[in-house]
Amino acid sequence: MVSEKHGDAINLSHHLSDIARARQTSPLKGLAKYLGNPGLISLAGGMPNPAYFPFASVSGEALVPDSYPLNVTTESSSTSWFWKLFSSSGSKERTTPITIGKYPKKPEDVNLATALQYGMATGLPQLKEVLKEFVEKVYQPAYGNWTTLIHTGNTDGWAKAVLTLLNPGEGILCSEWTYPSALASALPFSVTPVPVAMDGQGMRSDALRKVLAEWDEEARGMPRPHVLYTVPVGQNPTGATMLAARKKEIYAVCVEYDIVIVEDDPYYFLQVGDYVPESERANQNDLSSASDDVFIAGLAPSYLKFDYQGRVIRLDTFSKTVAPGSRLGWYTCNPMFAERLERAAETSTQAPSGFSQTLVTSLLLEWKYDGYIRWLKGLRVQYKQRRDYFVDCLAEEFHLRKTVATQGYRAGATVLEASLKPKGIFVNYKEKDVLYSRIFSLVPPTAGMFVWLEMHFEEHPSFAELGYKKLENKLWIALAEAGVLFGPGQMFSATPVTNETEGNGHFRISFSFNDNSEMRKAVAIFGTVARKFFSSRV
Amino acid sequence: MVSEKHGDAINLSHHLSDIARARQTSPLKGLAKYLGNPGLISLAGGMPNPAYFPFASVSGEALVPDSYPLNVTTESSSTSWFWKLFSSSGSKERTTPITIGKYPKKPEDVNLATALQYGMATGLPQLKEVLKEFVEKVYQPAYGNWTTLIHTGNTDGWAKAVLTLLNPGEGILCSEWTYPSALASALPFSVTPVPVAMDGQGMRSDALRKVLAEWDEEARGMPRPHVLYTVPVGQNPTGATMLAARKKEIYAVCVEYDIVIVEDDPYYFLQVGDYVPESERANQNDLSSASDDVFIAGLAPSYLKFDYQGRVIRLDTFSKTVAPGSRLGWYTCNPMFAERLERAAETSTQAPSGFSQTLVTSLLLEWKYDGYIRWLKGLRVQYKQRRDYFVDCLAEEFHLRKTVATQGYRAGATVLEASLKPKGIFVNYKEKDVLYSRIFSLVPPTAGMFVWLEMHFEEHPSFAELGYKKLENKLWIALAEAGVLFGPGQMFSATPVTNETEGNGHFRISFSFNDNSEMRKAVAIFGTVARKFFSSRV
Repeated sequence: MVSEKHGDAINLSHHLSDIARARQTSPLKGLAKYLGNPGLISLAGGMPNPAYFPFASVSGEALVPDSYPLNVTTESSSTSWFWKLFSSSGSKERTTPITIGKYPKKPEDVNLATALQYGMATGLPQLKEVLKEFVEKVYQPAYGNWTTLIHTGNTDGWAKAVLTLLNPGEGILCSEWTYPSALASALPFSVTPVPVAMDGQGMRSDALRKVLAEWDEEARGMPRPHVLYTVPVGQNPTGATMLAARKKEIYAVCVEYDIVIVEDDPYYFLQVGDYVPESERANQNDLSSASDDVFIAGLAPSYLKFDYQGRVIRLDTFSKTVAPGSRLGWYTCNPMFAERLERAAETSTQAPSGFSQTLVTSLLLEWKYDGYIRWLKGLRVQYKQRRDYFVDCLAEEFHLRKTVATQGYRAGATVLEASLKPKGIFVNYKEKDVLYSRIFSLVPPTAGMFVWLEMHFEEHPSFAELGYKKLENKLWIALAEAGVLFGPGQMFSATPVTNETEGNGHFRISFSFNDNSEMRKAVAIFGTVARKFFSSRV
Repeated sequence: MVSEKHGDAINLSHHLSDIARARQTSPLKGLAKYLGNPGLISLAGGMPNPAYFPFASVSGEALVPDSYPLNVTTESSSTSWFWKLFSSSGSKERTTPITIGKYPKKPEDVNLATALQYGMATGLPQLKEVLKEFVEKVYQPAYGNWTTLIHTGNTDGWAKAVLTLLNPGEGILCSEWTYPSALASALPFSVTPVPVAMDGQGMRSDALRKVLAEWDEEARGMPRPHVLYTVPVGQNPTGATMLAARKKEIYAVCVEYDIVIVEDDPYYFLQVGDYVPESERANQNDLSSASDDVFIAGLAPSYLKFDYQGRVIRLDTFSKTVAPGSRLGWYTCNPMFAERLERAAETSTQAPSGFSQTLVTSLLLEWKYDGYIRWLKGLRVQYKQRRDYFVDCLAEEFHLRKTVATQGYRAGATVLEASLKPKGIFVNYKEKDVLYSRIFSLVPPTAGMFVWLEMHFEEHPSFAELGYKKLENKLWIALAEAGVLFGPGQMFSATPVTNETEGNGHFRISFSFNDNSEMRKAVAIFGTVARKFFSSRV
């Protein structure tokens, strides 16, 4: 396969939508041969003189890369109440100042005169360099002429990919449970989801092949899909992470049926390993303290690593590794797709914010590649502790029993089944019936920000009349009224949950934001509300 | 008209495109009643804890509002070479530090924990407050329930408006010369321009009425347009500015034919008054030194001021008043359009960059309304000096003769017709023929960033064979090879310039960016190249 590894992308221009084909080539292309002339005076653009930018400089107090420890601590300093108290007075966080002046002192300096000016939608060249090194070292694409293009975050990155790849009336292959905002970006353009069954690793390759092999254009009312959307790591909402072997299988199916894969991978660096109960956690081997190469090799590989044909559009974002408000991310894909996506940016968002670009680029240049990897290792430990703490809270509030799922969307995964614990010495008469039945179950996620609870409403006394959907709604409201908001599960179904007694009841719970004390309190409220909810007809 | 002035927007929902109708209502709406609960623990979102944002604070050295003088100086300090030299060492610009901490000290403080987090597409509440005050005081909308919504700059603002208002196969009313990027945002969606004739104030109201009254759906191949795109101040490319009376006339036609007006107004504060030759300029009355109220009353009003029905979507941007790289601007429109545009943002760009939002908002809060108006007055003087300087350079290089256009797209405007000046004592034999014929003409713009030259290629010895388009291309290349880039005129035609001998030859020249010395040099090169170009067959 060596020749494939070093080859360039194959021609995939037949995947472009009518809209993408209709996008004009950049008028700047015609000027390119003159723009290189050093003495050139350009009066062609509509650019304000940078003297009129009302910032002489912009600075940031950047956290040092090793702000978060690599060893697991009992209480994460970041999540305790006193963190906020101290950090607001500046005495807690270790920082390095970074400053971006208006004009460069050396030609290669990041500077506001360039970054805050109109420019190419490709953004700052310094950022492109940083991303090139990062993609090369971390994702290791399998073909030669891959490129990167910055965008304003994965939501917009995906929205532009939809318009670039899909015509109205076409479908997108996606997991049966999927990120609803991704579908919401496509639906108004008459592009609808084509759900594929999942197991504990996410989308099943056999199910994908079956959907494609048996595709009946007339019965389905649309041509066989040619685009696959996937969140392969810490899948939103189920938390499933797809390992190398499955990705290779899916990639092979996509080669066979000529499918373009859009890999939306915001949680890539939140791969936190298996959940181990608190009592067994003491001597846990942690990937984060490994060398950079071992650390990276230990992460589930990107589809890029198997993409010898250039049929993957990977979406990366700084939302989870820097901050969502950066509104900054990037595509890695073949140059033909990148060129069409750049045209789409020119006539809508243009380049992402220059303030974001300068601050994030300067941060990465200050940290360097090694420092950024160190930061990501530290984040990983934080999310591991958060995941562990939240599941520990569930284990304390509920009785958890370990099983392995043999079928359904969690097949192959270790499942924890939860039942109520007896409360006090005397068991309440009404509670007795539900005490030993499972009321929910979960797969402790190995990546991402979410725990996905499957609610076993079939154990509820009102199930026969109300079914899953109504019971999910009622419990969601009861929890909200008691002071806890979960994500309603039916939002995440690729097809509308309409049948009142089939389907599932689910909640998506985020462990990424709240303090430990809030998570503990939320689980306690969940316990109290669930106990009451499952004890009587509603 | 008092009742209309204080009424709310009329129902315009029939203008929504199929795409806009298909956008889902926000899932957050259902949560709203619970989100107000102060003790609520939300585990519903997918938000990282702000402790993981690697900036403890972000700062900027903000220029003081009176950085630029209100009196016209002979040499603008901003455009001289020593400005850059001094400002890079920080000794020239007067600045105030602004700092945004991660956590607020007072609840109302702008802070990174909020601004860099996922949030509503409506952005920072502090920014919304600032914009509300600004729109109320400056644009004075004529109806009651107008609202604002931030966007990532007017290019994206317009692109979202296209998808919100127009179905494939529909047309947009626009000026015969127009901003090509605006058309490029619409064309891929099969939305095409419907040009309307202009005069010296921009779009003609009688021409607009005629287009609409005589609309023949079959002959035109599309329904009568229901959307009008306009750059009413410092029109791009012609520089025309539309005054109150014309705007009222056009608004009345739009009421009669039920048209939505999209007012793209980036140059609003670059209204610089009439060009007065250098010799007569000494005691020129300058609006900039007037009181704020008089200054604002002296600017051409926005369409909002006449919009008693709420059928205007106004696009404002910080690109020209702060910096293009802010990628930040806002809509002012009725709440129904704003709601659909917000849904469009949720599934694509989300809120604009939090770095941009915090820095621009903090700047405006530091400056306050009065300070921002002072800044805008100072900018106005800078652009006036730039416009004056550039036209002065033309007057020095060429012989300019003042006339008034009586027909065509400049009708009613004062036109300067340029011919070559004799060079040296002996006139070159070849030059003689062209010495006293006009080779180009211009209307000195009263707003914006551009001078629009009409080239009189009909005076060229090769005109009969080559026509306007080819001569424009040839002169553009000759100029580029001599070291000056102008904007090629044919880019700005609403309909393709195809006929080789009809049409016009034009260049768009920006005076917004370059130093005086560069502008002078560029005009000298233009003179040399034009002298040679018009003297012989090409």
